[in-house]
Amino acid sequence: MKERPGEFEIIAECFAPLAGEGSFEFKDDAARFVPPEDMELVITSDAICEGVHFLEGTPAGLVAQKGLRTNLSDLAAKGAQPVSISLTLGLGANWELQWIRDFAAGLSSDLQKFGVTLLGGDTFNSPGGVVVSISAIGQVQKGNYVSRLGAKPGDLVYATGTIGDAGLGLAVEQGWLETNDKDARFLSDRYLLPRPRLEACDVLREFASASMDISDGLVGDFEKLCWASGVSGKLEASCVPLSDAARSVLASRDSNGENRVGLGTLLTAGDDYELLMTVSPGLRIAFERSSAELPFSVTRIGEISTGQGVFVFDADGSEMEFKNRSYSHF
Amino acid sequence: MKERPGEFEIIAECFAPLAGEGSFEFKDDAARFVPPEDMELVITSDAICEGVHFLEGTPAGLVAQKGLRTNLSDLAAKGAQPVSISLTLGLGANWELQWIRDFAAGLSSDLQKFGVTLLGGDTFNSPGGVVVSISAIGQVQKGNYVSRLGAKPGDLVYATGTIGDAGLGLAVEQGWLETNDKDARFLSDRYLLPRPRLEACDVLREFASASMDISDGLVGDFEKLCWASGVSGKLEASCVPLSDAARSVLASRDSNGENRVGLGTLLTAGDDYELLMTVSPGLRIAFERSSAELPFSVTRIGEISTGQGVFVFDADGSEMEFKNRSYSHF
Repeated sequence: MKERPGEFEIIAECFAPLAGEGSFEFKDDAARFVPPEDMELVITSDAICEGVHFLEGTPAGLVAQKGLRTNLSDLAAKGAQPVSISLTLGLGANWELQWIRDFAAGLSSDLQKFGVTLLGGDTFNSPGGVVVSISAIGQVQKGNYVSRLGAKPGDLVYATGTIGDAGLGLAVEQGWLETNDKDARFLSDRYLLPRPRLEACDVLREFASASMDISDGLVGDFEKLCWASGVSGKLEASCVPLSDAARSVLASRDSNGENRVGLGTLLTAGDDYELLMTVSPGLRIAFERSSAELPFSVTRIGEISTGQGVFVFDADGSEMEFKNRSYSHF
Repeated sequence: MKERPGEFEIIAECFAPLAGEGSFEFKDDAARFVPPEDMELVITSDAICEGVHFLEGTPAGLVAQKGLRTNLSDLAAKGAQPVSISLTLGLGANWELQWIRDFAAGLSSDLQKFGVTLLGGDTFNSPGGVVVSISAIGQVQKGNYVSRLGAKPGDLVYATGTIGDAGLGLAVEQGWLETNDKDARFLSDRYLLPRPRLEACDVLREFASASMDISDGLVGDFEKLCWASGVSGKLEASCVPLSDAARSVLASRDSNGENRVGLGTLLTAGDDYELLMTVSPGLRIAFERSSAELPFSVTRIGEISTGQGVFVFDADGSEMEFKNRSYSHF
């Protein structure tokens, strides 16, 4: 077995260069965090695990970025600007130093990109493989937190970006979905590297009655939003925004002339990391004008009503049925 | 296979009753945390993993408490009052609902005991077994954070409680150390259930130039403190506080008349979760008077000097050698 450095050396070589303000270069037991004035903090934690949330062999830099970005997506959904994170990193029995270097490089790049500081954390031995658990701290002006509990009957429902790409990307990565190279690259990228929709924070805080990020499938996540708000919801499946690549997969047929993938699969696939939000109908025009300036689309896909449950209607007006309404990472 | 509930049901049944202020009963993507005025926050994260930080078969409630208390011990070492935590919980493939119920009950009991709120978190599938990763938020008055970087030449070195018990407790739990029932129970308990020395926070903030918690062995951790402070240190091994049970093990001999465990083992064993601190000699009398009122002992064990390195002297004045100066959980 090769000589491998200890935790102390790994932190000094790979992580100390990433140390943010208050972190004492990770020489201390903890970090100091002086809260910004007039702000409230938004705290979220998410863990991703090898073989569950990402495939074995995923490049280390992408693992770090996915671990970070799933958390930033949660902050974006609350209208919060990311500030700092704390990391616990579990390494499998066969870890190699180069993997950790690549992980740290990917993390470093994203910390700079999103203006986030690394406060500290812990590395540990994880017999089952890599585990990346991140707690993220964001900030919003006091009173401006956007929960998922505020949707009201009559509110309109919107989604950012396009839905279902990441689920198809996972199928491409796993080798059971074939498509042309360009679409395959696009879909894989959507699975491997979430884009937290932080640019939407201002618009969300100004207009949204409720918001959440879509990580476990649109239909199931919309159910969670409706449940948390004590309302029911309707989705128009034909309005759900799809990428050209996803449309191309939907239109393709196997050798028996059957559709290879149905729309229902896209509406319940995981890892979209788009935002789902509700807006009062009185704010519709102003909201749509503001959201038109964002660097991604924001599309109206449904409506909130009284009662409970979520109903998804096809283009011909019939209610769609789903085998599983959520994608479970659990 | 038995029908098992999903993540949503587990959170609703086991964790929602533990939901703290700002957590939206875990119905939201994140939690709101309004920072207390005039305080700065202290952030720490620690993960514990089945088979590494605790043995398979450890009762679930104790796993939760160990996961929490290792973090609270870090906060105590910074002079910080614990406020809130966020939890990511990885469950192995064969998890059972009763295990999660017991985990939540143990956590709930400790949250109440230490006055800490649960802000939120994440549960995930962990093929390698249970992983408990906790990020903890503490608070200190602005400017009162106690780092491990401030030790000065001439400072006196103190430790709380007794050293080495938990390492012996691990040996008892693993079945390779036999002792009388009373000592075995005491030592096992010291391994299974850390006591974060939060009562020392006030005294630390008033008197300590540097402080850290002792989790990876006294000698190695003292080296880290000296390295972080840019000083050298001396320990008097005969001054290091030992419990009666540890003294009894030290004095015992095997069938060949050899010592079964040496003092060096106790000074480098992990999981003490005591505090190590340095105090300016001018504050000695006042510090010792204040610390005498704490519900555990605080013992002078060494001194800080210029230069670098840590030197441990035996009762006869000779320098002790160690095979490993730290216990590695990594």
